[in-house]
Amino acid sequence: METIRDYLVQRRAKVESALDRLLPRPEGDFSRHIEAMRYSLFVGGKRVRPILCLAAAECVSNDPDVEQRVMGVACALECIHTYSLIHDDLPAMDDDDLRRGKPTCHKKFGEAEAILAGDGLLTLAFDLLAGEATAALPDPVRLQIIRTIARAAGSMGMVGGQSLDIDAEGRRIDFDALRTIHRAKTGALITAAVETGALAGGADDHRLQALVNYGQAIGLAFQIVDDLLDVTATTEELGKPAGSDTRHNKATYPAFFGVERTREMAAKAAAEAEEALAPFDDRAEPLRSLARYIVERSR
Amino acid sequence: METIRDYLVQRRAKVESALDRLLPRPEGDFSRHIEAMRYSLFVGGKRVRPILCLAAAECVSNDPDVEQRVMGVACALECIHTYSLIHDDLPAMDDDDLRRGKPTCHKKFGEAEAILAGDGLLTLAFDLLAGEATAALPDPVRLQIIRTIARAAGSMGMVGGQSLDIDAEGRRIDFDALRTIHRAKTGALITAAVETGALAGGADDHRLQALVNYGQAIGLAFQIVDDLLDVTATTEELGKPAGSDTRHNKATYPAFFGVERTREMAAKAAAEAEEALAPFDDRAEPLRSLARYIVERSR
Repeated sequence: METIRDYLVQRRAKVESALDRLLPRPEGDFSRHIEAMRYSLFVGGKRVRPILCLAAAECVSNDPDVEQRVMGVACALECIHTYSLIHDDLPAMDDDDLRRGKPTCHKKFGEAEAILAGDGLLTLAFDLLAGEATAALPDPVRLQIIRTIARAAGSMGMVGGQSLDIDAEGRRIDFDALRTIHRAKTGALITAAVETGALAGGADDHRLQALVNYGQAIGLAFQIVDDLLDVTATTEELGKPAGSDTRHNKATYPAFFGVERTREMAAKAAAEAEEALAPFDDRAEPLRSLARYIVERSR
Repeated sequence: METIRDYLVQRRAKVESALDRLLPRPEGDFSRHIEAMRYSLFVGGKRVRPILCLAAAECVSNDPDVEQRVMGVACALECIHTYSLIHDDLPAMDDDDLRRGKPTCHKKFGEAEAILAGDGLLTLAFDLLAGEATAALPDPVRLQIIRTIARAAGSMGMVGGQSLDIDAEGRRIDFDALRTIHRAKTGALITAAVETGALAGGADDHRLQALVNYGQAIGLAFQIVDDLLDVTATTEELGKPAGSDTRHNKATYPAFFGVERTREMAAKAAAEAEEALAPFDDRAEPLRSLARYIVERSR
């Protein structure tokens, strides 16, 4: 486990320094707005999506500079993830005051600015994907990446999933409905992170499909573990109120299957993710470790 | 005036039928969410941005099919404009119950769904810009269009302008600050509509710059007239509460200069827009009429 932890720490630092470089400076006319975007982006975070994107690119590419070429895509994914957290935390949505142990964006900057900080980050993501930050990638690949991310983040993906999730609150839903919500709300963007990394790394169709399979399995593992941690971790460990799913009457894996059975399901999803990597050589080692790491997190 | 009115009616119908074709159907898992997006998109609207985009493309292109090639860009602009209205109307922002004479999105679908409908429309715009809807344009042009729209709609443009506008409410700001807000909040996307139309139509640098100048002048004229109408029109004419700027203590052109002087300024901006079109032949006639029409609207 020590190796993957070191790997994650190093990658996180690189992603954060690239984000800092790519975000506008908090100065001039729009300084308060930019401050709000930067606050939420740099308040913490595991940077799972950008790290998956970089690791997927490296797993298929022989180019020693691939990290640099893909970093713009990785940062765009993190902007989209952060915007979704800002909007999810709003009073009209999940109404959360804490995120990563710090006040949420609307608690710090007010509700109007939090809505706009989210809007700004979402828009910035597409600026990065079409701008200098991805200029080292071929144009058709950049457009394919933009489509993939827009679909995963949009009405049939993350945003649609959040709408279903809000709608389901307090209602009794069956396991199929829960799976649809999870796949759309969390799974789609995690899968897109792996997929766009593979595209940016120049994967052929066969490897691309294998990595999409990996992405879907790891997205599922990630969501199951998230559900588990809400039950088993403390508020301090989570950086947000533990037990919030139970209080909001949300359907979760532990609510359907209990903690032990849910643990097994997480391990199974992670194993499936590893299996999807069978066609790959040592360069897929970080992706394999990431699958194991996600499940270890829940113990 | 009759000709331009006919032109606008026809164009509006074409844009709306394209939007209907490009938006997801309100069925399946995400039907309620898609319904909310469609509600705000089809509740009305002058379709100024898509019409400007199409007219700019036609003004520089000899291709008889140019309308069809550019329609995806035009529709993406309208999705972004509509999302901005949905978010601006939210209780945390301008808190408006009526838009185009109908309940605003959050009044009809609730606040959470209105936030998500806006997010969904913004994301869909980039899906359209990178997807099949723009596939007839060369890839480098599509990427340039995405960059142009992302910048105009983002933190240094529309979203940043809305943040300044919210921030300025109830405070005394000077005319320079008002101009910065207008340029960012309204001007940037209108200019981008003309600019991306010109790009899609294959304009050379010289014509592109002339059309950007036109876009900036017409964006200003449009905003001045909007300020005027808030003072001079009735609620019924506007489809939203008249006098809302005064009630919100907003800085406006009439508040600085009075109604008569503001009328002159609108006419001057429209004349500047027409002057920018001097290098163009008859194909620029719709753009010329649009400049005059915008000012006529205020009488």
